[in-house]
Amino acid sequence: MSNSVTAQHISVLGLGAMGAALAQALLAGGHQLTVWNRTPSRAEALVSQGAQVAATSAEALAVADLVILCLLDDASVREHLEPAAAALRGRTVINLTTATPEQARSLGRWAAEHEVALMDGGIMAVPSMIGGPAAFVLYSGAAAEFERFHGVLELFGRAEFVGEDFGAAAMYDLAILGGMYSMFAGFQQGAKMVRTTGGTAAHLATLMAPFLQAMTTMFAQYAPGIDDPESYVPEQDADFTAGAIGTIDKAAVESGTATELFGVLLRTLPGI
Amino acid sequence: MSNSVTAQHISVLGLGAMGAALAQALLAGGHQLTVWNRTPSRAEALVSQGAQVAATSAEALAVADLVILCLLDDASVREHLEPAAAALRGRTVINLTTATPEQARSLGRWAAEHEVALMDGGIMAVPSMIGGPAAFVLYSGAAAEFERFHGVLELFGRAEFVGEDFGAAAMYDLAILGGMYSMFAGFQQGAKMVRTTGGTAAHLATLMAPFLQAMTTMFAQYAPGIDDPESYVPEQDADFTAGAIGTIDKAAVESGTATELFGVLLRTLPGI
Ligand SMILES: NC(=O)c1ccc[n+]([C@@H]2O[C@H](COP(=O)([O-])OP(=O)(O)OC[C@H]3O[C@@H](n4cnc5c(N)ncnc54)[C@H](OP(=O)(O)O)[C@@H]3O)[C@@H](O)[C@H]2O)c1
Ligand SMILES: NC(=O)c1ccc[n+]([C@@H]2O[C@H](COP(=O)([O-])OP(=O)(O)OC[C@H]3O[C@@H](n4cnc5c(N)ncnc54)[C@H](OP(=O)(O)O)[C@@H]3O)[C@@H](O)[C@H]2O)c1
Repeated sequence: MSNSVTAQHISVLGLGAMGAALAQALLAGGHQLTVWNRTPSRAEALVSQGAQVAATSAEALAVADLVILCLLDDASVREHLEPAAAALRGRTVINLTTATPEQARSLGRWAAEHEVALMDGGIMAVPSMIGGPAAFVLYSGAAAEFERFHGVLELFGRAEFVGEDFGAAAMYDLAILGGMYSMFAGFQQGAKMVRTTGGTAAHLATLMAPFLQAMTTMFAQYAPGIDDPESYVPEQDADFTAGAIGTIDKAAVESGTATELFGVLLRTLPGI
Repeated sequence: MSNSVTAQHISVLGLGAMGAALAQALLAGGHQLTVWNRTPSRAEALVSQGAQVAATSAEALAVADLVILCLLDDASVREHLEPAAAALRGRTVINLTTATPEQARSLGRWAAEHEVALMDGGIMAVPSMIGGPAAFVLYSGAAAEFERFHGVLELFGRAEFVGEDFGAAAMYDLAILGGMYSMFAGFQQGAKMVRTTGGTAAHLATLMAPFLQAMTTMFAQYAPGIDDPESYVPEQDADFTAGAIGTIDKAAVESGTATELFGVLLRTLPGI
């Protein structure tokens, strides 16, 4: 029964805000759990709830079928995984520490070399959302491990596999955050524009939020144009989009608040 | 009883896709309605539902307490309003033709000069949404007219007054559309990034849409920082935002799909 989910022994390394939330979710899910944190005091609350504590990262890595890492950055992950390569052979490691696609791919090559089954993950949630309905986590790398540990991963939030390229989860993560920041930049620019009429960012927020919520449905409509440009007939032609963005940019310029933002949209967006 | 809403006689000029939808909503609301369109045949369906048809725009303007314009552009509005200045004195005109803030202000000056009560409007809906729960229309200019005709305006969708500056409705309209296009640009750029990992824009759409929907709630949290920067303490410091956008931009560059977009965000967004 060693590959049934409840019999698996899991270790969590890193009990910062996010690692502690992940460990909590695993305990709540009834898992046998070993935890380790560089600063040992951060393990206390989890131990009082039934987690075992490891004295060193090497010990935490050695006892587990499944190792979950949630450290600060790629360097701290390397620092603790590399010396333990021999002990990790044949085990599964899921790295939920934020990494760039290139860092994730590099760790993937290291894992392949040492016969460690690796998945890289990107957490699309803040710690308080872990285990709740709005959290989702992106995974890439070893597809078989995703199937095998799916029940465990769903304890954190919706688990979404995005590809065998180790860098895929990080790339989707950064793409989604890039969309978020682009939207924020649009709000910020718009707020400056309406303020020149005596309006407020607060009033604009109440109007723009529901409108953009509704407009996110357009992503799915634009997707075929990006995935398969050959056979795609755009809903609105490039001239219409260019004209609309041109008018918006002109109003921004006339209001004295323009940045380069709409100019960039004008050069990149028409034809979507 | 001449200022009770049901006794008011309304004229709609312009029966294109949008004007026809507005006229339909007024008929459905039980209003006495005169319609005019440059190409007369477009009035037929409305006449069969009880609208009266005017032979000229001047005639449509002369019979109404409230005139609603939904023509192509500012030039077509000027073409029909200016010769009728004398007849319009003391009446209310609501211009729902798309205009820039400067065009709306210029028409506002013309209206003041000729003692016409003017509101400019920006329709945040497509024709099929008019009268439904998701439609809203921005109005600016004569605040008293907004109060007086509120019951009429609510027939089109939620009516939102955004200020006495005649250009305010157009500015809010363009600000909201600017936010939408910024969000679309973020999606487009993100889709190109994930495609380099073997992912698809279609898959990204299903993940980014709900995430950005949830993140629109941040607009209200950022608004005080824009409306009152002096007394605002940012939730995340500028360094955090700059670091995050820097990582996203680096991944875009490494993926070979980068445009200028994230560079612009890096120069404008930190500190929000
Ligand atoms: N918080 C979020 O909202 C969020 C969301 C998505 C992703 N993430 C990612 O999750 C990871 C952890 O974030 P967090 O919010 O939990 O951060 P945090 O509260 O600052 O915790 C950082 C953790 O990393 C440990 N650490 C740092 N350097 C280390 C080293 N050289 N060796 C061993 N341990 C080390 C810290 O240990 P000590 O206790 O000893 O300092 C601590 O456990 C980050 O990669 C972050 O980007 C966080
Ligand atoms: N459709 C939308 O989703 C939408 C959304 C928000 C705002 N708007 C705005 O609403 C306005 C109308 O849009 P629409 O979708 O109804 O456009 P449309 O279907 O193309 O209709 C244009 C209307 O303008 C009339 N027109 C054009 N030039 C004229 C002139 N010189 N004199 C008199 N009438 C003239 C046309 O008359 P003929 O029939 O004789 O050509 C027609 O009634 C535009 O300003 C548009 O930006 C539309």
